[in-house]
Amino acid sequence: MNMLLFTEADLVAPGIARVSGRRFRQLTEVIKAEPGKFCKAGILHGGTGCAELLRLDGETAEFALHLDREPPPPLAVTLVAALPRPLTFAKVLHGAVTAGVKRICFIHSSKVEKSYWQSSRIAPAEVEEAVILALEQCADTVTPEITFHPRFKPFVEDVLSELAAGGTALLGSPGAAEPVPVGAARRGPVLLAVGPEGGFSDYEETRLAEAGLRPVSLGARILRTEFAVASLLALLGAEL
Amino acid sequence: MNMLLFTEADLVAPGIARVSGRRFRQLTEVIKAEPGKFCKAGILHGGTGCAELLRLDGETAEFALHLDREPPPPLAVTLVAALPRPLTFAKVLHGAVTAGVKRICFIHSSKVEKSYWQSSRIAPAEVEEAVILALEQCADTVTPEITFHPRFKPFVEDVLSELAAGGTALLGSPGAAEPVPVGAARRGPVLLAVGPEGGFSDYEETRLAEAGLRPVSLGARILRTEFAVASLLALLGAEL
Repeated sequence: MNMLLFTEADLVAPGIARVSGRRFRQLTEVIKAEPGKFCKAGILHGGTGCAELLRLDGETAEFALHLDREPPPPLAVTLVAALPRPLTFAKVLHGAVTAGVKRICFIHSSKVEKSYWQSSRIAPAEVEEAVILALEQCADTVTPEITFHPRFKPFVEDVLSELAAGGTALLGSPGAAEPVPVGAARRGPVLLAVGPEGGFSDYEETRLAEAGLRPVSLGARILRTEFAVASLLALLGAEL
Repeated sequence: MNMLLFTEADLVAPGIARVSGRRFRQLTEVIKAEPGKFCKAGILHGGTGCAELLRLDGETAEFALHLDREPPPPLAVTLVAALPRPLTFAKVLHGAVTAGVKRICFIHSSKVEKSYWQSSRIAPAEVEEAVILALEQCADTVTPEITFHPRFKPFVEDVLSELAAGGTALLGSPGAAEPVPVGAARRGPVLLAVGPEGGFSDYEETRLAEAGLRPVSLGARILRTEFAVASLLALLGAEL
């Protein structure tokens, strides 16, 4: 936790917030906060700054908030990823949220196993908690929009073309000749699609190409999905 | 496993190799290989290409090797990382090896807990196995040199200055004003140091600065160590 993230529900008076539960335990057990000390803070969907610990009792902590700064700018990338296996899903989600992505679509592909769609990891409450932890990690306050699309064709026909309109649309593809356009997300919005382990099928690649996606590659090395996504996002968002 | 990695010890005749154990089980259970089929292959410290499965019996598989290509080029980055907690160590190691780093030093820092140095993950046999799995992931054959330095000061005085000589020397530092020099590893060798969770101490940062390391930042977001390392390596190795 690099930032204490409050929500509107924590406010007990203007500028005064109280936390209990997980955040309280982290404060007392891990961070060993004491009254009078300041820590980095933010409020969900709002500003960032610092919070002064006013009081600690057995199970709650009360803070004065000074949240006069903007959260870090978003990364202008929409991520479309074939739903990974549950543990990898959690890593990809964390990596994308901490990189600043604000729109993520997890989609089906012929190489996505049916069981992945039944995982508890993709249940709304688990996703929401994972997002909060990722925002606390990267000191951001703005939650991304995350959607799940268990059918490939309707997604490509009805959703993808709209997402891809008006920007650069790319497909991360280990075999592609063109390298990742470094800094592209600073010159305009980027749509980035990433396939499952083993890649999209020929049929799926054709449909993605028809939707305007251009294959780009990270080079000869094949990375684990979470590292491939982190590397692609770092390159697209690079400051040149 | 994106590439079947053989060793000299697997060769039973020129161009003929036999495997058993883990690789055999993956071939039969996961990949469901059959005689006559080809798969991507390489030989440790040597070439890459393909292998034709000749024969399968109950516990061994025999292949004809066609390894006439070079492995992917290394990434011209020497990575110096404060030893992370054991699970993160495994992720950082995997990420660095799959990104093509060929020299990694894990070092002590005041925020590295003593218990990390006792972890079985850093035992030579475990490190070696993790490296082999990472090479199979990224389809490379060249093992990196990995060393452990449980004392900060002797490392900085005796080892670091030599490693930093003649190239760009950087310290990944979330607070730094200068962004990561994109593509730097393509213009010459780079030394990249990465601190522990919570960063190097002021004393340590001063010593690293004296050794010639320049602080650079990925931006306002604070990433988990393994994602920070993957992002830094992607940016340093970027093709512009």
